[in-house]
Amino acid sequence: MSLLYEGKAKRIYSTEQSDVLRVEYKDEVTAGNGAKKDSIEGKGRLNNLITSKIFEYIQSKGVNSHFVKQLSETEQLVKSVEIIPLEVVVRNIAAGSITKRLGFEKGHEFDTPLVEFFYKNDDLNDPLITEDHIQLLHLASEAEVGHLKQAALEVNQALVNLMDEMNLRLVDFKIEFGRTPEGKILLADEISPDTCRIWEKHSDKNLDKDVYREDTGSIIDTYETFLNKLEAL
Amino acid sequence: MSLLYEGKAKRIYSTEQSDVLRVEYKDEVTAGNGAKKDSIEGKGRLNNLITSKIFEYIQSKGVNSHFVKQLSETEQLVKSVEIIPLEVVVRNIAAGSITKRLGFEKGHEFDTPLVEFFYKNDDLNDPLITEDHIQLLHLASEAEVGHLKQAALEVNQALVNLMDEMNLRLVDFKIEFGRTPEGKILLADEISPDTCRIWEKHSDKNLDKDVYREDTGSIIDTYETFLNKLEAL
Repeated sequence: MSLLYEGKAKRIYSTEQSDVLRVEYKDEVTAGNGAKKDSIEGKGRLNNLITSKIFEYIQSKGVNSHFVKQLSETEQLVKSVEIIPLEVVVRNIAAGSITKRLGFEKGHEFDTPLVEFFYKNDDLNDPLITEDHIQLLHLASEAEVGHLKQAALEVNQALVNLMDEMNLRLVDFKIEFGRTPEGKILLADEISPDTCRIWEKHSDKNLDKDVYREDTGSIIDTYETFLNKLEAL
Repeated sequence: MSLLYEGKAKRIYSTEQSDVLRVEYKDEVTAGNGAKKDSIEGKGRLNNLITSKIFEYIQSKGVNSHFVKQLSETEQLVKSVEIIPLEVVVRNIAAGSITKRLGFEKGHEFDTPLVEFFYKNDDLNDPLITEDHIQLLHLASEAEVGHLKQAALEVNQALVNLMDEMNLRLVDFKIEFGRTPEGKILLADEISPDTCRIWEKHSDKNLDKDVYREDTGSIIDTYETFLNKLEAL
């Protein structure tokens, strides 16, 4: 089966079913839009196992996603969708870019979860965009944007509950969505410590890619700890 | 009467009426958040005359503003308002920051006028913010944001018509709003070639501060030309 696409962290292959793709998680890890880059053995396996478990969980909570099933330690099957070029970010607690951008103190709890849209465009450095920009760039219709926001908040609620059971706080996360050939919108991409910011309750220790971004710990040990907590539920 | 505030381009004084302020337009001109700075004799007079004429015009079109009356060549009286720390930008045609930020080609005509909000905060470099950010920063209520957007589009329509009569194209502009002690929202600040991007029809020659930003002409000659066209109506 042929390689359709290779990104920073995954390879996508066609399968015998035209509407199903095989995703292979790579060991590559990047930060700062590719400014920092490494290959760390075992990282692809961890992200595949974690993403598979999380997509199974949120699907059980009624969120429609592209996820079909885990195939091997580093592979999963997903429905073929056309990715909408938006990074949808949900924030419960201020950390990362929003502290620099808007001056919120790290750790500030938002009154309500905040949904932000970023335009997936490497040349423009994935800029923040408004709902009106999304219309003018013809990235999604007004109704679709409403649906994305609603779905993002539902994913957030499911993940907040899940993390709470694991004695963790979900600070923020990034998700992506895709359209099926019939125009149905499905949650796509991955949900893992690569795409979430997760703090241990009380200690505020990171269980996410910030340990790699900030060189404060082993990414494998950290993700392994997260996976163990997830599997212990 | 005492000086209450001195900004980059204006001084604000109290008057004998507690709800009325005197605004004196200065000759200072800045660009790039103060990175480029000059004092150009006659510039304050031009901006005061132009802003006074434009506020009279848009008030006649039903837009509520802080403007009371022109007092002298460089001064005007305005109602006292608490400025909402938002720069409200309306764009009809792509130019300036949005071409770099989102990749729109300079001169691209938007399907509908675009309203953008920027957080007036020098330390943060006046970042673009979304309507949800405005809520979380407690800058304005949801109803107020709706009102600001609506008012900005009404100002735009009035200005587009005015410029059209002057054989000019209104590319974009920045406005600010303030709250009266009673909580009423009024258009405030100024509307001049300092705060608008204006192109001559056909030639696309700038009649605005871009001649200063880009060193392509005399700011006095340019603003004088604009004022003459405005007075000739």
